[in-house]
Amino acid sequence: MPTLSTTPAQDGYTMPGEFEPHTGTWMLWPQRFDTYRMGAVYAQRTWVTVAETIARFEPLTIGVNHDQYRRARKMLPPTVRVLEISSNDAWTRDSGPTFLTNRQGGIRGVHWQFNAWGGFNGGAYFPWDEDLLVAEKILTLAGADRYCAPFILEGGSIHSDGQGTILTTEECLLNPNRNPHLAKEQIEAYLKSYLGAQTVIWLPRGVAFDETSGHVDNFACFARPAEVILAWSDDPNNPNYERVREGLAVLENSRDAQGRPFTVHKLQLPPQLHRTKEEALEIDENEFARDRLADLPLAGSYVNFYLVNGGVILPVFGEATDANAIAVLQGIFPDRQVVAVPGREILLGGGNVHCITQQQPA
Amino acid sequence: MPTLSTTPAQDGYTMPGEFEPHTGTWMLWPQRFDTYRMGAVYAQRTWVTVAETIARFEPLTIGVNHDQYRRARKMLPPTVRVLEISSNDAWTRDSGPTFLTNRQGGIRGVHWQFNAWGGFNGGAYFPWDEDLLVAEKILTLAGADRYCAPFILEGGSIHSDGQGTILTTEECLLNPNRNPHLAKEQIEAYLKSYLGAQTVIWLPRGVAFDETSGHVDNFACFARPAEVILAWSDDPNNPNYERVREGLAVLENSRDAQGRPFTVHKLQLPPQLHRTKEEALEIDENEFARDRLADLPLAGSYVNFYLVNGGVILPVFGEATDANAIAVLQGIFPDRQVVAVPGREILLGGGNVHCITQQQPA
Repeated sequence: MPTLSTTPAQDGYTMPGEFEPHTGTWMLWPQRFDTYRMGAVYAQRTWVTVAETIARFEPLTIGVNHDQYRRARKMLPPTVRVLEISSNDAWTRDSGPTFLTNRQGGIRGVHWQFNAWGGFNGGAYFPWDEDLLVAEKILTLAGADRYCAPFILEGGSIHSDGQGTILTTEECLLNPNRNPHLAKEQIEAYLKSYLGAQTVIWLPRGVAFDETSGHVDNFACFARPAEVILAWSDDPNNPNYERVREGLAVLENSRDAQGRPFTVHKLQLPPQLHRTKEEALEIDENEFARDRLADLPLAGSYVNFYLVNGGVILPVFGEATDANAIAVLQGIFPDRQVVAVPGREILLGGGNVHCITQQQPA
Repeated sequence: MPTLSTTPAQDGYTMPGEFEPHTGTWMLWPQRFDTYRMGAVYAQRTWVTVAETIARFEPLTIGVNHDQYRRARKMLPPTVRVLEISSNDAWTRDSGPTFLTNRQGGIRGVHWQFNAWGGFNGGAYFPWDEDLLVAEKILTLAGADRYCAPFILEGGSIHSDGQGTILTTEECLLNPNRNPHLAKEQIEAYLKSYLGAQTVIWLPRGVAFDETSGHVDNFACFARPAEVILAWSDDPNNPNYERVREGLAVLENSRDAQGRPFTVHKLQLPPQLHRTKEEALEIDENEFARDRLADLPLAGSYVNFYLVNGGVILPVFGEATDANAIAVLQGIFPDRQVVAVPGREILLGGGNVHCITQQQPA
């Protein structure tokens, strides 16, 4: 599809809210032995569960490297479309495009620059050459023209209310391993240009120990315009105790692009989780990927759910806190079916359900 | 897309004539150093010419291995859609699906078995593991349900008049390196079942020295129902002198599925062509592909043209005979634009324009 030389803001294109109707969802297939344990089979089983769950709500395409095509096709149900889309890892939220619409039936996408969450300064793996092409390939398949943004950004670091407001974190977007040459004001101007937005809400930090340097999608999101769901903990010993209060303070003192204050729904975090010794041993460590050591804390969060047409795909962790998360989200989304999926194998790779999906708005 | 357990004949699906309207064309990108000279660059330039020419007439998608995606995208014009579809080589006619319609808007495809034109008994290369998946992947992209045929067949070995008649050759379909366990009657029954046909016309042989064991698409094709274009030579020293007369005799003594005799248009072959010493030297020979030696004869033929919506894409060879081929085809197809493209680099790889394309009927 053509690459455009204008910006979405100039052309009247904006990022819809995830809660708005989708044409479908895009995913990628995990296979890194140096990131996922047991030859990636446990992760693949979880991805299959997520994919087949989403496919009950809307069309789902999963992109796979050629050498795993047979395997993916065999493991996935016929309701899931399997296509070749090469990647270095399976975080479609971050390497994929951000889709935009013009509210008149037009659909386009933003192809962000990407350096695997930090490049040689804290990134997750090397190389990321295939990831660099994922957005272009998905946009070609979707038949959507492409904007190429002139800065590094992962889709997991932004949320849109579809009405001009973007939610993000300073911890990620101002991290020197992303765009050290850009000041906050320049990044904010780019966000407005490339997402067709008027207001950017800067939360200070994301979830503690998040490998993404604090992606907002593990910490806070829009339930609908002017309503934010925020990770929460009332335990002073929880490493997120200060972080969630910082975030709440910003939200309470902000107005969205339409001038509205935010209603904030608190969503209790799971207890602090850690990688077990067994889970660490079962990874084929090498020099191409970040070490995934035993006992290291994991950034588990129920906010990393994904909204589909009529549903909420929620990662759970086998913890007592799971039931509360399901109940709270069912209360926030009375018209959606909340479906819990096992989130631990995704979390071991550094993210969760929201990180491995990407919506194509209707 | 679902794999069906019935046959096209049972479901009322048939193979339209290539001369009928297309939704578009599928191609694959060449890259074998052991088959194409000069690191495949000359072949790639020719494929680009063919692709951009076809794209002037109808939508064109080219599938490419992930390691050549950047190169293909850079060389091809924006009018050509580039997607990842892995292959061992770029003969979409043969590894791709055969599309069928039910004349009521339905489209499906046949996935033939494939052994690289002969497997370990004269095949072109090893392995052909990626080729085995090409048809499934194209049908998925086209949104077409799939029939899996229980025998080996390449699309270049059949032509359909869209009205129940199939044209093929005994030299290829009865070759012991394809389906040695099947008798002619069984193969004919399969052709009828999987192409929704009633009559099979068996020409004895194809063009001499054809690496495909005599694919019909280098030798004879339908201009329209009851009209066949046949390769021809009036030179008794031409190695095809007897072959074309054998073919003509069969056509003159046959009736199509509707009971009509055939009008035969003779299309003079180019002079016998050979691989030059320079062309042979510029290939990186290895044990994985057929030797491509200097001075070996090449199976050049103008019949290996491809019909697109409103056009005829004709391979030419820089020979005095080119002008006659253009004129004859323009006479047979007064409503189509005949566009000549350089065919030699494709011929050096073992086929021509028809072999590297596959139509998706409307």
